Amino acid sequence: MNEIKDLSKTNYKWVGKRTRRPDGPDKVTGRAQYGDDIVMPGMLCGKILRSPHAHAKILSIDTSKAEALKGVKAVVTHKDIPDHALLEPPYGPVIADFHDIARNVLAREKVLYDGHAVAAVAATSERIASAAIKLIEVEYEILPHVLDPFEAAQPDAPVLHDHQFTNGVTPAPEKPSNVFRVVSTERGDLEAGFADADIIVEREFNSKPVHQGYIEPQALIASASEDGAVELWTTTQGHFVIRGLCARLLNIDMSKIRVTASEIGGGFGGKNNLYAEPLAIRLSQKSGKPVRMVMSRSDVFRGTGPASGTYSRIRMGAKKDGTIVAAEAEIYNQAGAFKGSPVGRSLDSFFSSYAIVNAKATAYDVCVNRPKVAAYRAPGAPMATLGAELTINEIAEKLNIDPIDLRLKNAVQDGGESLCGVKYGRIGLTEVLEAVKNHPHYSAPLKANQGRGFALGYWMHGGGLSSVNANLLDDGTVAVATGNPDIGGSRSSMRVMAAEELGVELETVKPVVADTASMGYSHLTAGSRTTFATGLAVINSIREIIEKLCALAAKKWDIPVDDVTWEAGQAVTHRDGFDSLTLKQLAGMATKMGGPIAGHSEINAGGAGAAFSAQLVDVEVDPETGLSSVKRYTIIQDAGRAISPDYVEGQMQGGAVQGIGWALNEEYFYDDEGHLLNSGFLDYRMPVASDLPMIDTVIIEVPNPNHPYGVRGVGEPPLVPAPAAVANAVENAIGRKLGSLPLSPPKVLAAIETGTPRGD
Amino acid sequence: MNEIKDLSKTNYKWVGKRTRRPDGPDKVTGRAQYGDDIVMPGMLCGKILRSPHAHAKILSIDTSKAEALKGVKAVVTHKDIPDHALLEPPYGPVIADFHDIARNVLAREKVLYDGHAVAAVAATSERIASAAIKLIEVEYEILPHVLDPFEAAQPDAPVLHDHQFTNGVTPAPEKPSNVFRVVSTERGDLEAGFADADIIVEREFNSKPVHQGYIEPQALIASASEDGAVELWTTTQGHFVIRGLCARLLNIDMSKIRVTASEIGGGFGGKNNLYAEPLAIRLSQKSGKPVRMVMSRSDVFRGTGPASGTYSRIRMGAKKDGTIVAAEAEIYNQAGAFKGSPVGRSLDSFFSSYAIVNAKATAYDVCVNRPKVAAYRAPGAPMATLGAELTINEIAEKLNIDPIDLRLKNAVQDGGESLCGVKYGRIGLTEVLEAVKNHPHYSAPLKANQGRGFALGYWMHGGGLSSVNANLLDDGTVAVATGNPDIGGSRSSMRVMAAEELGVELETVKPVVADTASMGYSHLTAGSRTTFATGLAVINSIREIIEKLCALAAKKWDIPVDDVTWEAGQAVTHRDGFDSLTLKQLAGMATKMGGPIAGHSEINAGGAGAAFSAQLVDVEVDPETGLSSVKRYTIIQDAGRAISPDYVEGQMQGGAVQGIGWALNEEYFYDDEGHLLNSGFLDYRMPVASDLPMIDTVIIEVPNPNHPYGVRGVGEPPLVPAPAAVANAVENAIGRKLGSLPLSPPKVLAAIETGTPRGD
Repeated sequence: MNEIKDLSKTNYKWVGKRTRRPDGPDKVTGRAQYGDDIVMPGMLCGKILRSPHAHAKILSIDTSKAEALKGVKAVVTHKDIPDHALLEPPYGPVIADFHDIARNVLAREKVLYDGHAVAAVAATSERIASAAIKLIEVEYEILPHVLDPFEAAQPDAPVLHDHQFTNGVTPAPEKPSNVFRVVSTERGDLEAGFADADIIVEREFNSKPVHQGYIEPQALIASASEDGAVELWTTTQGHFVIRGLCARLLNIDMSKIRVTASEIGGGFGGKNNLYAEPLAIRLSQKSGKPVRMVMSRSDVFRGTGPASGTYSRIRMGAKKDGTIVAAEAEIYNQAGAFKGSPVGRSLDSFFSSYAIVNAKATAYDVCVNRPKVAAYRAPGAPMATLGAELTINEIAEKLNIDPIDLRLKNAVQDGGESLCGVKYGRIGLTEVLEAVKNHPHYSAPLKANQGRGFALGYWMHGGGLSSVNANLLDDGTVAVATGNPDIGGSRSSMRVMAAEELGVELETVKPVVADTASMGYSHLTAGSRTTFATGLAVINSIREIIEKLCALAAKKWDIPVDDVTWEAGQAVTHRDGFDSLTLKQLAGMATKMGGPIAGHSEINAGGAGAAFSAQLVDVEVDPETGLSSVKRYTIIQDAGRAISPDYVEGQMQGGAVQGIGWALNEEYFYDDEGHLLNSGFLDYRMPVASDLPMIDTVIIEVPNPNHPYGVRGVGEPPLVPAPAAVANAVENAIGRKLGSLPLSPPKVLAAIETGTPRGD
Repeated sequence: MNEIKDLSKTNYKWVGKRTRRPDGPDKVTGRAQYGDDIVMPGMLCGKILRSPHAHAKILSIDTSKAEALKGVKAVVTHKDIPDHALLEPPYGPVIADFHDIARNVLAREKVLYDGHAVAAVAATSERIASAAIKLIEVEYEILPHVLDPFEAAQPDAPVLHDHQFTNGVTPAPEKPSNVFRVVSTERGDLEAGFADADIIVEREFNSKPVHQGYIEPQALIASASEDGAVELWTTTQGHFVIRGLCARLLNIDMSKIRVTASEIGGGFGGKNNLYAEPLAIRLSQKSGKPVRMVMSRSDVFRGTGPASGTYSRIRMGAKKDGTIVAAEAEIYNQAGAFKGSPVGRSLDSFFSSYAIVNAKATAYDVCVNRPKVAAYRAPGAPMATLGAELTINEIAEKLNIDPIDLRLKNAVQDGGESLCGVKYGRIGLTEVLEAVKNHPHYSAPLKANQGRGFALGYWMHGGGLSSVNANLLDDGTVAVATGNPDIGGSRSSMRVMAAEELGVELETVKPVVADTASMGYSHLTAGSRTTFATGLAVINSIREIIEKLCALAAKKWDIPVDDVTWEAGQAVTHRDGFDSLTLKQLAGMATKMGGPIAGHSEINAGGAGAAFSAQLVDVEVDPETGLSSVKRYTIIQDAGRAISPDYVEGQMQGGAVQGIGWALNEEYFYDDEGHLLNSGFLDYRMPVASDLPMIDTVIIEVPNPNHPYGVRGVGEPPLVPAPAAVANAVENAIGRKLGSLPLSPPKVLAAIETGTPRGD
């Protein structure tokens, strides 16, 4: 069941309505063009040679036999990718370290994980390209490897990068480490807090890397011209970002690279990064032909970034009345082969739903011999939340307080701040928690072997850089071009906001995802930022158009522009004797009376605000096999304002389903040599429809005051508490505490039989 | 030899410099993508069935056999093209009559010329498509036809359109006519003028339709989606115009059609129109597949518009001192099968270089059984100019006055106006004429059988609608996107103006021709408007960027914005203690300090101004064969300001060469049934390099005060006087007056042997 609770009682024409998807027909008919749907005359097939070792020195690469194979047109190795200097401290929150990017794109001195790209070829057919990569001879010296972030952080672990010394610790370390940095945040007096506590709960947690599991593997085509220009067509969450990364990595003028984002078959954070793009560009430059590169599913698992696996410790103290007086957390995030796991977001995620006076969190960014991690829907948050929420539930249990009441008691309020000090404005946390308490699911009876779990998730939404060009056409239709690939319905929400502002029919507005050639910079479609930030740019652009239309009407009527207003799709005036002028009428006269009418906006949007997602889940555990089945799932989440409710609900449902996968099934299996054993969907088990009940949703609308319609963003919060909620349900079903995800049947069976495993 | 005479003595960094072509490498290497270079998966081949008759009723069309052929996926006839009502008077200067466009795109009740499109098919291969069109059975009732505009204007001529009654005559006509309208313009008292004249010269002229002869035939690919959206890739001078025409013709929302202009292999006015685009869209809609349609050269000659053939009469009277006191002109422009020859431009072209007190011109727009005419470089002007200039040369001869002196005496001055009343601002006519007199070519000796010709041409440039998006990128490079296909160097001139404004290196600016999805409306690249109007929009956009950069520097420096200026690519301040900030530095900080920086402009530019081209040509006529060879050619033209002199000279040379073709060689041959006999370049003889001397140019720069750099536009004036100058040279070589173009060898031989033919 899907509900919407609009707490501001507004009356819109399109906002909040269930409208037809603008991308539906093309997707249903197979017409939508994904990454590998573009062909260019004379294009070559590119293939990547990947490392068979988890960690090894590259002694030599001999490409001569591959180059000599008939049909091979170009071969690239790290020698074809410019090297870049190491980043110097201080390190910002987001690391664009081209020293690392160059090495992840193609291994240079060493291979650092099974599947690390070593060389690439372009040939006239896929068969020849596949044959050619087998002819490349690489001499390796195998080195010891490490996969677990906690082990990798120990002083005796095999070290991936001899140049890397831990940042953020004193005294400055003397020997290199896999720990790139240690970051922490603190408030109050932690020791005094714990001293004041009536009870203290301390737990350990483990999680494995999990893959975004997008349906469409990475796929692209690059065509480089002799004049230095590059055309790139790729499946990405941010073609402007890809343009910038390729330009900087390959030392090409940014303006010379034109990137078109294909339709995208899922991203979830996994399509923010460079992989084969620079290789295809170099292969195209060397061969003089367009080069297409499409990953296999095995390439995707072996070569692209999952979310961090983690090891974490939580310690919390509370008074008998439920006041949480101290909270401490520590997390080791595995970064994969190169630094840059989401440590900051982990820190901010532990306790930010609560006003805890004394709190501290520490996060370690740890390199291991696995693919470099990528963003995955609320990066850094779900695993930090797992530990904190399971611990809070245990406190509630021990104090015999209702877990929602416990949270309501400690809930952060409007004007509060996150653990990392991000200020909240108006937030909907209390409204969400009260809706949970009042939801029938919360008090529904359970059957045998069933348990109910609950968890709360917090996410601070991104704003940032967005650009929009909106053009009013002669026939009164409006083309709204953004630079954001539509990964989850942004064309729909942009169209809704534009039509709402204009007061016209939805079909009057055509939403377009434009390429990089004629648009201002638009940051990733990520961080749940697009409907908020790009939406603001759309609203700005449309308001500029409306202003110009009012001026045009004033000119036509020969009255002052202040006497003209825009109402319900028409220019109107309170003066007598003037019939209102419709959008279509004004559009028809615009080019004769001044010029084409357009609105533009380039912004760096702030104030996206925080959102909270609360999740109730009922799980039934088969006591004989340890198999956990989700029986009922309800998500109650503050969306600020659901511009397109169908999509908001889809985001909520999708986030929960991914969280179920994290909690119950998904993990990477490696053998002793560090080879990935389950690089396909048959062995890497994601939830499918038959594993799931319908996911019920309740959208709470506490409008964000920093957006004209109150948008907060909705894509990431639903994943944040999902693993914790599911794990809590399994705990409650079997009466044991569980700390190591995924809660696979053997692990659950062991817990039932032997007691409470706290971490692996 | 190429000279530039800058009469304003300015000092620019890039304007007026000879710079490297931005489109050069892609064109030289074959990488540039023309109309038929795009492939789409599953695309079909579209072919058109054309009329074998010059004029016939369509009794029936049976497509069943074609539809049954294996591999045929769709067939369209006029039934698939919506009909549109006839236009009602008053008629504007430009006619977008969808009643006619629908019928020209696919014949409906009648076929009106040999080659008129009747049906189209899409099939899985070209072979099948060709076989399929032969299976379409059309029953015709052949009607009498007429090809010559003067004959067609007679009351007893076969009538093409029963619904067409001549406009602009009184009393209103009672029976339908091939003459769509008669337009005229008049000033002073013509009879009094002639009465005052010491001599009167009266002559008749004829010309044949001539084709633009672009190298690349029309080619396109259309892909229609089930959701109503259309992607169209086509070779055109105006993809925004094509979008609008397709939308209106086919009743599709304009915003749903995205048109990308391919690189273009010549247009010269011939690629402003709809031909196969709507057919390809309909075929794609019916088949569900992309459809590519590429014309053969024969299709181009039979199915696309040439310039009007004409019949004209000129009568001029002058005083002994050379003052022209009366001028009268009449021209019959053949419109082809549908109304709309450039009658207005013809009227304005006869006498607008001269301040003649008493003048009148009349033009007839006449339908004949030939392809509908299209624009061709200065449409309507060359043939009007032919008559007027040859007549003035005869007056000079008769009065024994130097022809340049005669023109200087009568030359229109700054602040004057054209025959149709278009006001001149600052013009460079006197400067041009004086440069002719002082040019060594003017007094160089001639050899036996040689003659020297001279003519003067006038063109009032277009301004109009242009849009630009300029984006400053993070690395300090700038992408300047326009909506104008680059037919003659506009990417170069846009880049030059942008780099000049910014004060940066040329390579910093990347000029882009963007598709219709994210740009404001941009009118055709035609009418010599682009460097002027789109250039203004570029300058506006860059100035907006500079303003934002100054504001950014002020913010960075924390000083008032009024204290910041932009100089030589940097923000500077007169205040002490601030190092200037370069474009690159500011670009790097822009997104962190407010957002992406962009400039936009959507304008309707006026004030493009008039330009004059004077041409001297030496021709040698072989008295035995009548073959005329051009030996020396000099063009002296006011360009206002040559932004990119290489291109300006190229335009001047190209215009002259096309005029040589008009004058000496080019014509369509029809048999008695109205079938075109020479639909290929072997028989339709255009000048090739070996026919020509180097064309010398002198660019006169009398800046246009309505453009920051003084641009006037240069593409059209060089064609205007060229046929007249060449014909005058042949006249002088053989000592006979000639009035019927082309001056083919048999015609010249006949003139030598039999006297002076005045008209055919």
